[in-house]
Amino acid sequence: MAEFKIERPDQALRPALQAKIDNLTKPKGSLGRLEELALQIGLVQHTLSPELRHPQNIVFAGDHGIVDEGVSIAPKEVTWQQVCHFTHPKGTGGVNFLCRQHGFTLKVVDAGVDFDLPRDRGIIDLKVGRGTRNFLHGPAMTEAEMEQCLQGGAKVVRQCQSEGSNILSFGEMGIGNTSPSSIWMSYFTGIPLAECVGAGSGLDNEGIRHKYDVLHRSMEGYAGDGSPRDIIRWFGGFEMVMAIGAMLQAAELKMIILVDGFIMTSCILAASKLYPEVLGYAIFGHCGDESGHKKMLDALGAKPLLNLGLRLGEGTGAICAYPIVESAVRMINQMDTFSGADITKYF
Amino acid sequence: MAEFKIERPDQALRPALQAKIDNLTKPKGSLGRLEELALQIGLVQHTLSPELRHPQNIVFAGDHGIVDEGVSIAPKEVTWQQVCHFTHPKGTGGVNFLCRQHGFTLKVVDAGVDFDLPRDRGIIDLKVGRGTRNFLHGPAMTEAEMEQCLQGGAKVVRQCQSEGSNILSFGEMGIGNTSPSSIWMSYFTGIPLAECVGAGSGLDNEGIRHKYDVLHRSMEGYAGDGSPRDIIRWFGGFEMVMAIGAMLQAAELKMIILVDGFIMTSCILAASKLYPEVLGYAIFGHCGDESGHKKMLDALGAKPLLNLGLRLGEGTGAICAYPIVESAVRMINQMDTFSGADITKYF
Repeated sequence: MAEFKIERPDQALRPALQAKIDNLTKPKGSLGRLEELALQIGLVQHTLSPELRHPQNIVFAGDHGIVDEGVSIAPKEVTWQQVCHFTHPKGTGGVNFLCRQHGFTLKVVDAGVDFDLPRDRGIIDLKVGRGTRNFLHGPAMTEAEMEQCLQGGAKVVRQCQSEGSNILSFGEMGIGNTSPSSIWMSYFTGIPLAECVGAGSGLDNEGIRHKYDVLHRSMEGYAGDGSPRDIIRWFGGFEMVMAIGAMLQAAELKMIILVDGFIMTSCILAASKLYPEVLGYAIFGHCGDESGHKKMLDALGAKPLLNLGLRLGEGTGAICAYPIVESAVRMINQMDTFSGADITKYF
Repeated sequence: MAEFKIERPDQALRPALQAKIDNLTKPKGSLGRLEELALQIGLVQHTLSPELRHPQNIVFAGDHGIVDEGVSIAPKEVTWQQVCHFTHPKGTGGVNFLCRQHGFTLKVVDAGVDFDLPRDRGIIDLKVGRGTRNFLHGPAMTEAEMEQCLQGGAKVVRQCQSEGSNILSFGEMGIGNTSPSSIWMSYFTGIPLAECVGAGSGLDNEGIRHKYDVLHRSMEGYAGDGSPRDIIRWFGGFEMVMAIGAMLQAAELKMIILVDGFIMTSCILAASKLYPEVLGYAIFGHCGDESGHKKMLDALGAKPLLNLGLRLGEGTGAICAYPIVESAVRMINQMDTFSGADITKYF
């Protein structure tokens, strides 16, 4: 099985970083979250002068057998259609304008889309299968498929590192993937399933009740060993498990992980059940509009940067938060100290 | 007296704007606040294809007589020191790195600093006086000074428009200026003064009690006519009243106003008591960490974009929010529709 060596970020620099931040020309603490981010990134990068290099957003795409049970308002074909859309030269998808705005390279990975995707769009082909199996009737994937996902995600991240990146955001495209996310959330936080299930891309109340019923029966039918790894495998999507592999590899390589919405939060939650230290590398981009996201963030002790009512996925919420992360790094590098600027220090 | 012709943004385009936003390739409403912003900016600019041109941040600076009463932890000299700092070629102040990051031009205006500022820094000299009078003992400024402030702020904004700007953020530098802000807040919202007074740049609990006592006695000593205009004059700072003039002029010119923290929120609150329509042009950048800011935003029905615990002023919170505003404009201009992208529309 894939193994990762993830260390908690070294804390030795903490006092020096805090002192540097406290001496910048502002009332102590007055740049709030920017100060916390600068400290975190300084610790991860083990430097008083952190930098962000070549941000990339990686969208993992995959289909889900559970969609056969009518758990999503959107038809399955939207997965491949959107993958084609994101990678079209026009670049008119939701994730595209945000990547352009903030200088992100977009990588789109076919983790397991139920379609023969075009070969001329630069889509990274790591297809594990044409969608997962329906977990109402048994495990979504085999051990071997799970391993393939973890290795695939890790490989994409190593590629990003070789291209010079030290900060990555992860997104997903997969009709139906709030369903496995809700189940993971319930298993890994202990929150009752009913509080973990939401509207996804637009279910009405009756649709949500049906989705809950399907997921509840799926959990009743679970016959595995109860370990985090097995729960990830039984209910996961190919794109989601690949994201877990990517996050774990990013943490091993001491890269910053920008966490997107409900689905990606469930992935880092699952990842943290395998390697708790992964959370030291995570910056939570936003609290989305999907029911349960706030509770999952609270369970993780995570404080998202934004709360803009987004629920699109694709990495959009993480990328929207990037300029705030960049502000933090600019703050610690570009602001002067009280003495350097000849300003009376009054505290 | 300065008069402004401020119209509520024309609502005629609302259905067409909403239809355009709803047809973009995303679940309806899934870009949350971005969709609301795109609608607002489209209405203000009266177009289906809004654009943001040449953002500028205007920092108004002034001193306050009330500082003589020990209401601030920071000494008065920090006002002029910071004005020099912001305008130093090194550009190492808090507001400087954010302006650079987001492509803002920074204008710094001497509205009434108690110091002879250097003439070689490009500081715009609209000095009304060397600080206001101490409002514990009488009005902070005369009618003529108030008028000079309103006209001055308006003039700077017309200059920005002539330079091609259609979006402005406003910030301030003025040791002691949370004190007039708290009083305005209490008068204009009806919230008891005690809930409007906070730590400013770092008072301890005893300091806050003393500040409250000074402000309470100042309000008891108020002997004006009780009109918004008179309350603005009696307690206001030169930099704050100039910001009001700037905001009103910006609204008359149908520009977007990015609102910063506690002090600038109190200014647009005061401005709205003169011209309620000004609020249609305002985007609230953030909810700051100063006690009372959230309550003041609630009283205005304002939903700030960010909540990052900032309390620096200078326009920093407004500028931090700019990329989100830009995202909204990119969304409506750069995303494709379902039919344009050959994606099944499922709602």
